[in-house]
Amino acid sequence: MLMKVTLRTDVLTNNNKAADYNRELFTTTKTLVINLMSSPGAGKTTLLEETVSVLSRKYRIAVIEGDLATEKDADRIRKAGAKAVQINTHGGCHLDARMIAAVLPEFDLEEVDVLFIENVGNLVCPSGYDLGQMHKVAVLSVPEGNDKIPKYPVMFMRTELVLLNKIDLLPYLDFNVEKAKRDLEGINLSSKLIPVSAKSKEGLLDWFNWIEEAYKTCQQ
Amino acid sequence: MLMKVTLRTDVLTNNNKAADYNRELFTTTKTLVINLMSSPGAGKTTLLEETVSVLSRKYRIAVIEGDLATEKDADRIRKAGAKAVQINTHGGCHLDARMIAAVLPEFDLEEVDVLFIENVGNLVCPSGYDLGQMHKVAVLSVPEGNDKIPKYPVMFMRTELVLLNKIDLLPYLDFNVEKAKRDLEGINLSSKLIPVSAKSKEGLLDWFNWIEEAYKTCQQ
Repeated sequence: MLMKVTLRTDVLTNNNKAADYNRELFTTTKTLVINLMSSPGAGKTTLLEETVSVLSRKYRIAVIEGDLATEKDADRIRKAGAKAVQINTHGGCHLDARMIAAVLPEFDLEEVDVLFIENVGNLVCPSGYDLGQMHKVAVLSVPEGNDKIPKYPVMFMRTELVLLNKIDLLPYLDFNVEKAKRDLEGINLSSKLIPVSAKSKEGLLDWFNWIEEAYKTCQQ
Repeated sequence: MLMKVTLRTDVLTNNNKAADYNRELFTTTKTLVINLMSSPGAGKTTLLEETVSVLSRKYRIAVIEGDLATEKDADRIRKAGAKAVQINTHGGCHLDARMIAAVLPEFDLEEVDVLFIENVGNLVCPSGYDLGQMHKVAVLSVPEGNDKIPKYPVMFMRTELVLLNKIDLLPYLDFNVEKAKRDLEGINLSSKLIPVSAKSKEGLLDWFNWIEEAYKTCQQ
């Protein structure tokens, strides 16, 4: 048991060192860095496509894509108009700070205003790993159901914003947005929930405004 | 690096020992055991509720529920009419064979025909852990999108059946069922895909027939 605890501590210590290194770089270059996490298929990439296509008129945006396999998501982001680097974890269930540090030389951070890190689709593992980001954002989608916030508390305790995506499907599904807000408040008083649909574009402006505020704070 | 590999090997060796122990018990008692895996919110519990409510007229069904937190899913299964034991992993992203072995004394396997193990909602971690089950079944849901089979190949390479759930939402979403079948064939020739909807009940009979066949084989 002692062995197990020590090793887990070492893994996180190494991760935290790399996270501090990344954070230092991001702070120095005043790059707003957002770590986006969710279940597979909650719509992170589609949200980023919409975000890139609108906000790239104002900001220089870059994206790091995390996946087990394929270059599919990075290709989608490039088509939307941002530089994207794909990390394949080859089975690993989350990104860690060293993987991020390893690809940072591919960006000129002085020329990047906003960097999104799209984590591996997983509602468990990514929450434990600091990547050096300024903000952690979780995406929850309506078809996943109302029970996800209480059932995966670690994720939602550690994020400061929840984008409730696919609200265009609300008429066809039993999902109570007010209950989701109450559940979130119950485990994390400082988190906010913004209902959005990357498809119908409803609510996206609230998300963009949130990014604008975060960007302003990051420049101070 | 050597240390890392050795440790990973040890973890899996310990898991495999427990899996063999479980398998021996399941085989001796001729209990059909199905390990059900998916992303969070793909609809495993709702599928099990429907399955229990129909098949419990013919079989004695029991369920082991895996979750990070809460007893919610076990409660739902009990209401549907089967004995259910909840395992909380307290942050762990998958069940392992020792967790299963630890709760088996709560069942009288001689009196159980079919045991479902609902794994933690996660499309990555559970695929690496043999629980001693006879069959591994993955649930993929229409709102998760067509890219999940190529993007999470490890899960779909290791399961022999994919239940494509929430097909009642096909009219509202861009999902190509034939493409999903082709993608699955491309990585796993021996896997089958059954489109179902736990909500509209479409396709459930195909799933029940699959269970019947598996049960017959298990009695030989």
